[in-house]
Amino acid sequence: MMKGMWSFAKAHGTGNDFVVLADPNGELPLTSALAAAICDRRRGIGADGLLRVVRSAAHPDAAAFAGDAEWFMDYWNADGTLAEMCGNGVRAYARYLTDEKLVDSEPLRIATRSGVVDVVVDNDLITVTLDAPQVQTPSTATVSGQMYAGAVVSAGNPNLVCRVARADLSGLDLTRQPSLVEADFPRGANVEFIAAGEPVAGADEHVHMRVFERGVGETLSCGSGACAAAAVVLRDVGGASGVVAVDVPGGRLYVALNGDTCDLSGPAVVVARGEFDPAVLSR
Amino acid sequence: MMKGMWSFAKAHGTGNDFVVLADPNGELPLTSALAAAICDRRRGIGADGLLRVVRSAAHPDAAAFAGDAEWFMDYWNADGTLAEMCGNGVRAYARYLTDEKLVDSEPLRIATRSGVVDVVVDNDLITVTLDAPQVQTPSTATVSGQMYAGAVVSAGNPNLVCRVARADLSGLDLTRQPSLVEADFPRGANVEFIAAGEPVAGADEHVHMRVFERGVGETLSCGSGACAAAAVVLRDVGGASGVVAVDVPGGRLYVALNGDTCDLSGPAVVVARGEFDPAVLSR
Repeated sequence: MMKGMWSFAKAHGTGNDFVVLADPNGELPLTSALAAAICDRRRGIGADGLLRVVRSAAHPDAAAFAGDAEWFMDYWNADGTLAEMCGNGVRAYARYLTDEKLVDSEPLRIATRSGVVDVVVDNDLITVTLDAPQVQTPSTATVSGQMYAGAVVSAGNPNLVCRVARADLSGLDLTRQPSLVEADFPRGANVEFIAAGEPVAGADEHVHMRVFERGVGETLSCGSGACAAAAVVLRDVGGASGVVAVDVPGGRLYVALNGDTCDLSGPAVVVARGEFDPAVLSR
Repeated sequence: MMKGMWSFAKAHGTGNDFVVLADPNGELPLTSALAAAICDRRRGIGADGLLRVVRSAAHPDAAAFAGDAEWFMDYWNADGTLAEMCGNGVRAYARYLTDEKLVDSEPLRIATRSGVVDVVVDNDLITVTLDAPQVQTPSTATVSGQMYAGAVVSAGNPNLVCRVARADLSGLDLTRQPSLVEADFPRGANVEFIAAGEPVAGADEHVHMRVFERGVGETLSCGSGACAAAAVVLRDVGGASGVVAVDVPGGRLYVALNGDTCDLSGPAVVVARGEFDPAVLSR
């Protein structure tokens, strides 16, 4: 590596993409402005977010609680703000650790700002165990003047999950933020629209999903949204446990709910590796 | 470089971004599907287009006409179709050739599918000489129900240049394609909205510009659009020669018109370098 250059990889999980920054010893002077510049899709490398790979012992946000989790996912949103957790992000992070041979035992234990999570890498499928989402009160979303009934779901972040007819899903105009009931979502929400799908192998239920992410717009995938959707699907069939296949525009995720835990599974892949000069991106 | 890996750089000119693929001897089996996969912003590396750096003698599209132009810009749109020319693309291409020390004389002569162009690299500013745009008939664009008068301009591609008040420029809703007079633009057009700016050093005229690119949407910059705008600005002050500073959302371009030629100048920078496995992107 040339002096002054920073090493990176670009990775994605079902179309949710990340710049992965290698900084094992926490030496890189990463700032909010630089994280945003790196994630800028046209003037930078471009991604939904940045994952700094740093040893837990080398980062103040993880040193106190990480325990046996050697690696900390220092996650930054594309706008340069810090984030706590991202289901697809931690799966991409685990893929990177595995590809780079930075870990040698299973499950991986990865520290995040919302605690330590377990991740299992099984060939193409990477599974992270999260807390089970909580289905709460009914609410509604309005799109293009039409109101859709849904359920408020807490999955670490606020979600509204609305069922729509299969024939109507692809036609929904999600170029604009769906209107929400402000009293139910004082800080906004991710809005998931789901429609029943045909039976698929390895899952008890199957839905197609589109998602409008709070502050972002429609995205190819949303891990917490898939978990929220699965919780509603299982509730509707009278259960709290089971496996739901969730087809998002970026691919297929599996959500396995079992009591208090929620296993989110799907592919994640590193597509490129390289280096950049942070001084060029800071201009 | 690891066996089977392809080398790339990511570069941009005023926010118009490109994956630059190093293939001096024309050996890489690039296909339309792979070009689109590379340019996919979430599942690939991501860019507005792909520039393959290949010797003219090694590419059938350039071998016959390139003459003394050693390098050919094999330009692919993000959707995997071939393109002829791109003003910001050829400036980014020249920056890459210069940074990599693949050229040693000035001006660079670069072969493209629309002929050989001259490029001069002068520190931060990179200038490409193009054919002067042709201002043609009046026409109109309609945005959010409001009609704007403009001029049809041929700049290699079809453009409509509309003047708006400075106070109105930032409020224009360009999330949707402006409506055009179909008889004037049977195959669509780039639509440029320009507003007069304050005097700037080194330019006779100065405008602020936003552009809706045909088939793309609003972009941070458009080289041919800047040239088209400059031609209208100079026509409106009764001249055919002069320098126009064009501020696009991605930065400042300068357009110097002089009879039959049009010099497009602005910054272009390589922001990252790396490698990827085409087999991973082809999945």
